[in-house]
Amino acid sequence: MPQIAYLGPPGTFTEQATRLLTKGFDAELVPYETVPMALAAVRAGDVLAAGVPVENSVEGSVPATLDALTTGEPLVAVQEAVLPVQFDLLGKPGTALTEIGTVASHPHALAQVRGWLAANLPDARTQATSSTAAAAAAAAAGEFDAAISAPVALEYYPSLERLAGELADVRDAVTRFLLVRRPGVPPEPTGADRTSVCAVISDEVGTLTEMLAELSLRGINISRIESRPLRDRFGEYRFFLDFDGHVADARIGDALTALRRRCSVVRFLGSYPKADRSPASVRPSASEQAFQSAAKWLEDLRAGRLA
Amino acid sequence: MPQIAYLGPPGTFTEQATRLLTKGFDAELVPYETVPMALAAVRAGDVLAAGVPVENSVEGSVPATLDALTTGEPLVAVQEAVLPVQFDLLGKPGTALTEIGTVASHPHALAQVRGWLAANLPDARTQATSSTAAAAAAAAAGEFDAAISAPVALEYYPSLERLAGELADVRDAVTRFLLVRRPGVPPEPTGADRTSVCAVISDEVGTLTEMLAELSLRGINISRIESRPLRDRFGEYRFFLDFDGHVADARIGDALTALRRRCSVVRFLGSYPKADRSPASVRPSASEQAFQSAAKWLEDLRAGRLA
Amino acid sequence: MPQIAYLGPPGTFTEQATRLLTKGFDAELVPYETVPMALAAVRAGDVLAAGVPVENSVEGSVPATLDALTTGEPLVAVQEAVLPVQFDLLGKPGTALTEIGTVASHPHALAQVRGWLAANLPDARTQATSSTAAAAAAAAAGEFDAAISAPVALEYYPSLERLAGELADVRDAVTRFLLVRRPGVPPEPTGADRTSVCAVISDEVGTLTEMLAELSLRGINISRIESRPLRDRFGEYRFFLDFDGHVADARIGDALTALRRRCSVVRFLGSYPKADRSPASVRPSASEQAFQSAAKWLEDLRAGRLA
Amino acid sequence: MPQIAYLGPPGTFTEQATRLLTKGFDAELVPYETVPMALAAVRAGDVLAAGVPVENSVEGSVPATLDALTTGEPLVAVQEAVLPVQFDLLGKPGTALTEIGTVASHPHALAQVRGWLAANLPDARTQATSSTAAAAAAAAAGEFDAAISAPVALEYYPSLERLAGELADVRDAVTRFLLVRRPGVPPEPTGADRTSVCAVISDEVGTLTEMLAELSLRGINISRIESRPLRDRFGEYRFFLDFDGHVADARIGDALTALRRRCSVVRFLGSYPKADRSPASVRPSASEQAFQSAAKWLEDLRAGRLA
Repeated sequence: MPQIAYLGPPGTFTEQATRLLTKGFDAELVPYETVPMALAAVRAGDVLAAGVPVENSVEGSVPATLDALTTGEPLVAVQEAVLPVQFDLLGKPGTALTEIGTVASHPHALAQVRGWLAANLPDARTQATSSTAAAAAAAAAGEFDAAISAPVALEYYPSLERLAGELADVRDAVTRFLLVRRPGVPPEPTGADRTSVCAVISDEVGTLTEMLAELSLRGINISRIESRPLRDRFGEYRFFLDFDGHVADARIGDALTALRRRCSVVRFLGSYPKADRSPASVRPSASEQAFQSAAKWLEDLRAGRLA
Repeated sequence: MPQIAYLGPPGTFTEQATRLLTKGFDAELVPYETVPMALAAVRAGDVLAAGVPVENSVEGSVPATLDALTTGEPLVAVQEAVLPVQFDLLGKPGTALTEIGTVASHPHALAQVRGWLAANLPDARTQATSSTAAAAAAAAAGEFDAAISAPVALEYYPSLERLAGELADVRDAVTRFLLVRRPGVPPEPTGADRTSVCAVISDEVGTLTEMLAELSLRGINISRIESRPLRDRFGEYRFFLDFDGHVADARIGDALTALRRRCSVVRFLGSYPKADRSPASVRPSASEQAFQSAAKWLEDLRAGRLA
Repeated sequence: MPQIAYLGPPGTFTEQATRLLTKGFDAELVPYETVPMALAAVRAGDVLAAGVPVENSVEGSVPATLDALTTGEPLVAVQEAVLPVQFDLLGKPGTALTEIGTVASHPHALAQVRGWLAANLPDARTQATSSTAAAAAAAAAGEFDAAISAPVALEYYPSLERLAGELADVRDAVTRFLLVRRPGVPPEPTGADRTSVCAVISDEVGTLTEMLAELSLRGINISRIESRPLRDRFGEYRFFLDFDGHVADARIGDALTALRRRCSVVRFLGSYPKADRSPASVRPSASEQAFQSAAKWLEDLRAGRLA
Repeated sequence: MPQIAYLGPPGTFTEQATRLLTKGFDAELVPYETVPMALAAVRAGDVLAAGVPVENSVEGSVPATLDALTTGEPLVAVQEAVLPVQFDLLGKPGTALTEIGTVASHPHALAQVRGWLAANLPDARTQATSSTAAAAAAAAAGEFDAAISAPVALEYYPSLERLAGELADVRDAVTRFLLVRRPGVPPEPTGADRTSVCAVISDEVGTLTEMLAELSLRGINISRIESRPLRDRFGEYRFFLDFDGHVADARIGDALTALRRRCSVVRFLGSYPKADRSPASVRPSASEQAFQSAAKWLEDLRAGRLA
């Protein structure tokens, strides 16, 4: 059975996302201690793929993921998952909130439920753990009265019970995960795909604007952009771009070659179905048909067969 | 012997330009009364090509040429010539300026030497003719004392003499001519080529800017732009563009397909050597090599052969 | 009574246009032999203003007008007129077409009715005159059987009759004229104005695109663009731009200062009511209110009064 | 003595940065448990300002900081600090690496020294703490053999010793911090300033490109861009921009008003000296002088005083 890596331990948001990312695919999920370690396992061929957080992660450091993704051998994303940031309070069955003296979780999770804690467990002492699942494990082991965990943790610690839910102070936050593997033929286009790239450009005024114009002139919708400093290359910086469409689409292929011609480095990070399955809107001037008929026209011009 | 049309009569700027345009090519030059008539002869196959003014013409109405070029069967330019706007005063040999009572020329030529006439022939009466060559013919026939003509006219009217030269009030003006023929394989790229197109776009704010961005993002230098109203299509207008490069060049082909995808109409008006032979400057990101290697990269991405 | 210059003689398209341009204004129209002479008279203060052709003129050379407009002391347009290119055949009353052996006109007019002549006066001999009005004068004087003239010519030569109308081979062509004067407070904005400028920019790739972006980003609709070579400045070229809006409008003033900062030279050629009175469409983000409230916001930011 | 908040506890990277941010200013630094709590204290007027991580933080979640910064009453940054991500191993004086059985730190710090740990402390058990300083505190209290901490921690726990340094697996990583306070007159421009904004735009194709063009056309260098999803507003997204220059600069003020006119929301997040003090490069066309002289020119145009 193929193995899929994820940022462990079991019972975290990343595990939950990796299950989603591999749904319908018979694989064994294998936890790794860090994202770079999970990616190294993919690169080494120890596992088939890895589920990693790429945006607004609770437990994983996203900048570290992005850096690991773009350093070393190429990896490409083939699947996307988006999870609501939802925390549960787990403890021994029947525990009343008033009985809780200690509560554990990952520091970021603790920060994100601060308001709920102040209102509901004003006197509880908080304790950091290395993950939300580690908190559940410790609660199950009796080290703490309660844990703040991803809902999925309950499956791993059946001796615990959900004492409260929807603890996050901010509603509607989400985290985004990708399933990455070694390069291969991209997944089939679905009409509702996203493409991710990382590009290095000079920091001259206007270069970034021109890069984005290469996308917008082809009617391509940018869904995410993030620049990241490059310490080792003076006068350049790196940015991550996600946009609607698939490398197999004419407009996307055309835009990618434009980026490739103009950037010092372009790393293709994959084309994959969008988690929300919302179909890309394609302008008539950027349709497959428009690209084909323009290519045919150019061929005719060059051959002197202009009608 | 193949025939080449031009805006007649013989002895005009257009004839002079058409000689230049067909230099080294054994052809008979055939005068036509109007540019549309010359172009009609090309379209009908009566002549092989036609020399026509396209910018700042002395005798031919450039808007009329542009309209005739873009209405009806396609024609493409294959050669360019640029002439200085230089007028001579022609008359019977030995005529003193003080003896000149009447001077003839095309009204535009008369307007362009007005200052010289006021200074040198203040009392002469001017008379319009249908061309600068017609003026020379009439002067040769004794109808006028002098003619203001293109230098080439002297060849046709050897009974005349150049009484004065460099009459134009404005120094350094030039006119531009193209040799146009029916579509065929374009002339070989020389590295110093120009491409002309006529495109119809919607008049929405920003559309023209985006069209020009399609060129500038590919490092293409625009040498001329001129918009022309379109009476019969509400909300659209037409513009003429000349830019450095050849349809066979990767960056030009790529830009042309972009215009083709986005404009209601794009008419290719030819790729031809520039009269001044100044080589196009090509950015590294727009070189043939850059386009080829980007295309290869995309092919590899799509096939999963990404290294 | 104030005097207004125009490209003469009386009875031409330019005179007809200049009447329109000065409608409701009590002025004496004074013909000049050339456009540069008419403009010189304005600059010298001999006349108050001049009516000049600026686009697709039948008799006047538009490039020469544009050059004269942008060389020497500044002039600004205050009024616009657009005339259909409409030709009449004028001759002695009762003349039958079959009786016409000679027909005179300006060479450009002759070229534009070539098809009509071939169909209706196949045997007539054509003769050039310096203007369409000069043809009418000569016909009135009995020098030719007929003249091809602007409809207005009939007023000046009442001994002639309209023998035929609508002679132009191309339907719907128009010419455009401006009334120009020395700088002064521009006409009041009407909501349906046009602004004209002439700018000199470097010919680096992208500069023109950026100039147009300065307009389109402010929601300004370009109605005409025309580049003109600059012989005396290497690596630069000049272009004429007409766009919707008035110098008094916030978005236009803002765009003009952007051009001014970025171009070697910007010559303001006036803000004036559009001939067709079609109101400018203004985006919410480019409204007077939007500019005012953004300026107020910036003032508050700078003063630390940010709410 | 004024109080300045920071993400505590004492001895963390954020405290170290906040010291830098308030250098030369006599203030008491007050730790808060979360960034939102520190910002709430600023908003409430309990403290004068707060030091918060905004990029690549080790301990603080940057997305949470950005969200807290842009929700609720406005806050503006007045100072920037950039710290190398540098970890020390702290323990009881004289401890040999071989004696270390347990090592504690914040989970992100542990992840960032994973390689060092594997090479140097392969058998040590790691334990999460809520911050790097909490790890030092626990090590000082004897709960663990060693802590992985910010270098500054040693000042707070003088009973510990630096057992090893430069533990980070990735060289040259940095974190960026801002000192934010309630709105007031911005710090004086220094010629080496940065401006931060958060803007909400529609997700139509091209909108982001146009926003960036508003900056690049004014010669403004973008140093950072990051988009963030907006859950509650369909079809819009939010992005953070940092660019060179100060709100008091003409080009920056002009660009800000353009963003303000075009974006649903623009929140000014401050103008402050750049940590690296590298002066902004200003194009001649974007200089104070260029803006002033263009404004004067426009005023003259509008008043009819055009020379």
